[in-house]
Amino acid sequence: MNIQNPDYQLDVEKIFANSPFINDVGVKFETCGPGWCTTSLQVEARHHQHSGVIHAGVLSTMADNTAGVAAYTLVPKGVNVLTIEFKINLLRAATGKRLFCEAKVLKPGRLFSIVESEIFAFPDDTKKLVCKATVTIGNIAN
Amino acid sequence: MNIQNPDYQLDVEKIFANSPFINDVGVKFETCGPGWCTTSLQVEARHHQHSGVIHAGVLSTMADNTAGVAAYTLVPKGVNVLTIEFKINLLRAATGKRLFCEAKVLKPGRLFSIVESEIFAFPDDTKKLVCKATVTIGNIAN
Amino acid sequence: MNIQNPDYQLDVEKIFANSPFINDVGVKFETCGPGWCTTSLQVEARHHQHSGVIHAGVLSTMADNTAGVAAYTLVPKGVNVLTIEFKINLLRAATGKRLFCEAKVLKPGRLFSIVESEIFAFPDDTKKLVCKATVTIGNIAN
Amino acid sequence: MNIQNPDYQLDVEKIFANSPFINDVGVKFETCGPGWCTTSLQVEARHHQHSGVIHAGVLSTMADNTAGVAAYTLVPKGVNVLTIEFKINLLRAATGKRLFCEAKVLKPGRLFSIVESEIFAFPDDTKKLVCKATVTIGNIAN
Repeated sequence: MNIQNPDYQLDVEKIFANSPFINDVGVKFETCGPGWCTTSLQVEARHHQHSGVIHAGVLSTMADNTAGVAAYTLVPKGVNVLTIEFKINLLRAATGKRLFCEAKVLKPGRLFSIVESEIFAFPDDTKKLVCKATVTIGNIAN
Repeated sequence: MNIQNPDYQLDVEKIFANSPFINDVGVKFETCGPGWCTTSLQVEARHHQHSGVIHAGVLSTMADNTAGVAAYTLVPKGVNVLTIEFKINLLRAATGKRLFCEAKVLKPGRLFSIVESEIFAFPDDTKKLVCKATVTIGNIAN
Repeated sequence: MNIQNPDYQLDVEKIFANSPFINDVGVKFETCGPGWCTTSLQVEARHHQHSGVIHAGVLSTMADNTAGVAAYTLVPKGVNVLTIEFKINLLRAATGKRLFCEAKVLKPGRLFSIVESEIFAFPDDTKKLVCKATVTIGNIAN
Repeated sequence: MNIQNPDYQLDVEKIFANSPFINDVGVKFETCGPGWCTTSLQVEARHHQHSGVIHAGVLSTMADNTAGVAAYTLVPKGVNVLTIEFKINLLRAATGKRLFCEAKVLKPGRLFSIVESEIFAFPDDTKKLVCKATVTIGNIAN
């Protein structure tokens, strides 16, 4: 996929550094390339819901944000992105100490992009797909 | 809609008291009845995304959790609930100091329920619908 | 909601008259106003799936098309509309001789609109909500 | 993925032979295996919408039905399947003479399965992904 912003890697790092909620939840930027992004999370007790599994809100936050950055890698310099809508399927109860998220642009666009995010958990040292989201990300001219 | 758990109000309060992520984010239980629930959030700087609006992850967390509790009010004593999937539409950039969420069961079921959540923000003292979610909540026998 | 095309009623009738698949399936235009539209369908044996209930594809076609027309009532003269994405929940098995669909714009927009569609069936002469869809409709300048 | 019905291939052929709406629209069964199914459609003028592209209802019908059969390949003999909900993204205007759909089970389950469907069109003899759907299919004991 075509890059329109030669500084996208640096701009992505700035976005993560200046994203209060993402930092509050503890989602860490891992790496990105043209049309994709990965993030990770060290799971803490505060990320759980009452039944002891990781809260769907943690997974949604991670899936949405990683998708937004994947879309951002493809927009022109100075264009911002904003989530329009997403659907998320929680495929298995998410447990364990770490989450890893991969987001890939399925269809870039001038006005909006469609991005897919997958989150993996590592219970018992096995990698398990715990959720998948489809996210529509709008381009916002500044 | 029919109540199957006469203690549901007390059980809902226990769930909120024992939900680490909901308490970490700051979502407060307001009230509930048969097939519905309301929650609120005092917005802080940490809830924002890099562009200064409230992060979609905050809205998703609130919409999902309030939907789960709305479904919970209708399940038998001892049955737990877990989100299977949801779709959320972010209708407007969410700003302001407070969010209010209303969730209502659209269709209860023996195996799963369909619930709708709406979140309102209050920029400039006007009530604005900022997002709407449709949530499928599964019933988990203990 | 604000009308931008004074001829929208006439233009809606033209759209239905010139929509091959809608006419092939048998979805009939009922009425429309600013930001809403209703349609109906006389159910025939060909609309069923193998188990004897109305096929989800019939419901999807009706929900999507009625949503598109609801959005169309609010766009400027000469602008066309196209579905970007939708989610549909099939709440009950749909049976009976007739379907009725109501679509309402939840949030109009310059680039796209969010529309909700509900379809009702009439088994045993009672009106039952059988599905609900949330549809994102894009505006296409001609 | 594990087969529980040794006759699933034969049962799938029976389902297609006895599906009125699928036959009315013209969706043809191609092939299936454990957890997947493919179908095709020869596009006719009646499949279009007023703007001349293939109607989203055609794509939804094909995506939903192919997903249902993919899920069906994994359920025990005598269990039926029914769509609970789906989301579909229409990635590009669909044109051309033929559609091809591939559905794969992302997560099978005892009560419901999550299935992904992709539809390809062939404008100008190039294969283009025109839509992607995520479908929740419930298992119905007979």
